[in-house]
Amino acid sequence: MNGLMMDRPLLISSLLTHAESQHGDQEIVSRRVEGDLHRMTYRDLGRRARRLANALAAHGIAQGERVATLAWNGHRHMELYYAVSGTGAVLHTINPRLHADQVAWIADHAEDRILFFDLTFLPLVEAIAPHVATIRTFVAMTDRAHMPVSTTVPNLLCYEDLLEAHSPAFDWPEFDERSASSLCYTSGTTGKPKGVLYSHRSTLLHAYAAALPDALGYASSDTVLPVVPMFHVNAWGIPYIACMVGAKLVFPGPRLDGKSLHELFEAEGVTVSAGVPTVWQGLLAHVEANGLKFSTMRRTIVGGSACPPAMVQSFQERHGVQVVHAWGMTETSPLGTVCRLKPQHQALDAPQRLAIQSRQGRAVFGVEMKIVGAQGERLPHDGRAAGELMVRGPWIAAGYFRGEGTGALVDGWFPTGDVSTIDADGFMQITDRSKDVIKSGGEWIGSIDLENIAMAHPAVAMAACIAARHAKWDERPLLVVAKKSGHAVTRDELLGFYEGKIAKWWTPDDVVFVDSIPLGATGKVQKNLLRDAWGDHLLAKA
Amino acid sequence: MNGLMMDRPLLISSLLTHAESQHGDQEIVSRRVEGDLHRMTYRDLGRRARRLANALAAHGIAQGERVATLAWNGHRHMELYYAVSGTGAVLHTINPRLHADQVAWIADHAEDRILFFDLTFLPLVEAIAPHVATIRTFVAMTDRAHMPVSTTVPNLLCYEDLLEAHSPAFDWPEFDERSASSLCYTSGTTGKPKGVLYSHRSTLLHAYAAALPDALGYASSDTVLPVVPMFHVNAWGIPYIACMVGAKLVFPGPRLDGKSLHELFEAEGVTVSAGVPTVWQGLLAHVEANGLKFSTMRRTIVGGSACPPAMVQSFQERHGVQVVHAWGMTETSPLGTVCRLKPQHQALDAPQRLAIQSRQGRAVFGVEMKIVGAQGERLPHDGRAAGELMVRGPWIAAGYFRGEGTGALVDGWFPTGDVSTIDADGFMQITDRSKDVIKSGGEWIGSIDLENIAMAHPAVAMAACIAARHAKWDERPLLVVAKKSGHAVTRDELLGFYEGKIAKWWTPDDVVFVDSIPLGATGKVQKNLLRDAWGDHLLAKA
Repeated sequence: MNGLMMDRPLLISSLLTHAESQHGDQEIVSRRVEGDLHRMTYRDLGRRARRLANALAAHGIAQGERVATLAWNGHRHMELYYAVSGTGAVLHTINPRLHADQVAWIADHAEDRILFFDLTFLPLVEAIAPHVATIRTFVAMTDRAHMPVSTTVPNLLCYEDLLEAHSPAFDWPEFDERSASSLCYTSGTTGKPKGVLYSHRSTLLHAYAAALPDALGYASSDTVLPVVPMFHVNAWGIPYIACMVGAKLVFPGPRLDGKSLHELFEAEGVTVSAGVPTVWQGLLAHVEANGLKFSTMRRTIVGGSACPPAMVQSFQERHGVQVVHAWGMTETSPLGTVCRLKPQHQALDAPQRLAIQSRQGRAVFGVEMKIVGAQGERLPHDGRAAGELMVRGPWIAAGYFRGEGTGALVDGWFPTGDVSTIDADGFMQITDRSKDVIKSGGEWIGSIDLENIAMAHPAVAMAACIAARHAKWDERPLLVVAKKSGHAVTRDELLGFYEGKIAKWWTPDDVVFVDSIPLGATGKVQKNLLRDAWGDHLLAKA
Repeated sequence: MNGLMMDRPLLISSLLTHAESQHGDQEIVSRRVEGDLHRMTYRDLGRRARRLANALAAHGIAQGERVATLAWNGHRHMELYYAVSGTGAVLHTINPRLHADQVAWIADHAEDRILFFDLTFLPLVEAIAPHVATIRTFVAMTDRAHMPVSTTVPNLLCYEDLLEAHSPAFDWPEFDERSASSLCYTSGTTGKPKGVLYSHRSTLLHAYAAALPDALGYASSDTVLPVVPMFHVNAWGIPYIACMVGAKLVFPGPRLDGKSLHELFEAEGVTVSAGVPTVWQGLLAHVEANGLKFSTMRRTIVGGSACPPAMVQSFQERHGVQVVHAWGMTETSPLGTVCRLKPQHQALDAPQRLAIQSRQGRAVFGVEMKIVGAQGERLPHDGRAAGELMVRGPWIAAGYFRGEGTGALVDGWFPTGDVSTIDADGFMQITDRSKDVIKSGGEWIGSIDLENIAMAHPAVAMAACIAARHAKWDERPLLVVAKKSGHAVTRDELLGFYEGKIAKWWTPDDVVFVDSIPLGATGKVQKNLLRDAWGDHLLAKA
């Protein structure tokens, strides 16, 4: 027997109409590629998104067809988020940090019909245009005055001209909430990139869960600056959550250096933010080098990779900015866990609280988690047993676009490829990527712990720990280190730094000093490259 | 084209498993009918709910069948919430304040199979037992020691015996999220009561929206005491929201007087609460008469009917407890709007802020609102135009159980029977019930404004304003007043009290003093009785 409630679909367009009717005057501020600081309201967003929806229809974009973007965080990208998904088409955000060949491969695989891009990416678009078969139209996200005078891009249109040519009257269509809304490819450090296809239902449920007080906890009184790019898993859902709660939005555009971010935080009264650790490292360095402070910032979410505890401590103790770990993947929309302390943790001393904050956190409501051993057996949630993390829920991928990697689910659960523990309070802590884990004499050694210790050394700028082949133990940890400029440290000093901090047999066998650690397009350490370069280092020594 | 996300149903059982895995040690404290203060954890709740699920199965309760309760707010009622809906049966919470004839009528109409009741309601159950055809089994929600020694109730079982007899091992089944989960009858001041049948989907979406920071804003750090009864629209969703966010729960049982509530607030460190204005009036009177204070209370949600501004002011300015208006109905699950101030309101002075707080608030995300005129035409959201409030959304009723009142929707919108304004920021303010509105010479006069003014007079305990028939103007406002004991005020003093506060022609034509104002089973003024008694009062005078 069914309930007798209205059968209303969960649609992305309802976020926009909600924001217009309740937060029409709320601001959206954008640092643009053109250099200016642009201001508009949610009411303007609604009008411009509807003009754009008419423009998409005029260019023959049908429901389900893919509309690609190569763009920074800005109001025009936000307009595309709502216009494209609102009409029933699929927003395909491409990571512009990928190589041109990869961008062209992804656009072809997605069968994109039209590409919107920020002027920054004109050279990239010129490089791919001859190689993408399905894109019929290119749109530069700028006004007539800033249009390129000459370009090899065919059928190039001007975004502002397009909007002006179409009416702001448009009725958002109603359709099945399971319809595809947006598409994002995994970075694919190994193998081909795979497309994760979100639905209207998954996007709205994710936004509800992410906005809860124990998760991101955004309110209409907040000013949110998403550092996390809108081309990376929908900027962790912030463009949707902001409309849901009516927060003021500040888009940083292409300027993500410490100085530019800090100026924007202060000028616009930013209260909450979100991004990967490397960005916060840059911001912290700028603030500390110049004796600056944060007047309005209260909290930032850090995800993408684990945040070194030393950085958490600096933000919290010296600057009053709470640092909250979150964990997720492209396949998890992305929010899986958020590390909000529980009431009983308030009584702990600072180092104990910091230890809990170094975990990835508790599952947001809607995501189920379990850890399994090598035979797929469920492991206890006791904070000690480590196994592969499996997740399940309405915003977790069941497969990939056009069938790539189909069959990836195990008994209906998504295997994350992360190795983790879960404690009795539900706190999950990632100890490694399953492919990065070091198997020494049949025992697992977690590389992340070893890296965090090295990163706490004052002379270390960045550290990565990899599994190096070993004649006796099969694999042993090898530490790869980039030193801070002007700082010196020896191999023996670094290895001595581990003493008393971990089990003796976890100590890396050797240290290799490099000029820089290779990072992928989403800021993650490319351990596969390090393994290629140094995987035989310990054999060579033996 | 559909997205490629997992097709996981939204089920009430997932709230319980979430609370167990993440907030297993969190407390649920209950003032019981037996007189003791009972303590357990969410982990205990899970175990007891699964025992109960096995017991229900053993008694042949099939999916979709109705399980009735006549019970206060307490842990056993909470266990029923999860066990009944979790197994796929339908929890039918009956309002024990109704007359025995109505209770029997409702139980028959719902075709309840089994009835669980608190000992308080033994006389009521004895009265209805011979008259309800479908109930096969009666269960007293107590332990063996407190079972009634003799009773006319047939097949009477003991709740704690039932639990003990069954295993705590039970796998919650998976089924369609649109399945019915619970049933609540409208109070039906006019006509027969009508059953609103909630679904798992509507319940979970409602809980997500209600928990948002700008709505109830409950977090794992909160201690929640729901004064609003669990037999009244699922206690506004708090039993679900508490599991979603992991808040400590404090159930007051039958003792809702100011003294008992204040003691419990203080002893258990309650931070947030929710209930109807009459309860808060009693609490405030007790606190002020005894020079007490609130040590931990930060905020309460007030709904059911409008809260007099004078009371809001006392709570906020003298006791530091924020009073937040909410609006909803049995048909809206119930949350429709919450009156959280926006950032720009922080700059207003206290009386201006109070004026905004007297509104019913902004629609929570998921609920759409419009106001329509007599011909069904949409009226502007300008804060001035008043029309019938229409709502739409996934937790709004589309019809009633067993077809009663089917066809009530108008173009897919639910007509609330409330007359309201909506302003450009989305703030909705109810000016009247459409059936209570006073039509004087073709113009509408809102009775609620007139009542609020009267309630602000120091000698007035309660006031109600009704439409009285009038020879010249068709209807004119008549004020019905119950004085505070030991206070005196005359008709002319009261009418003079309106001067300068409203348009002169809105001033009531006369005042009738009564000993008490009749309240219905959910604490609302029964204006139909007042109209029966005094509707011809002005004709008689003329």
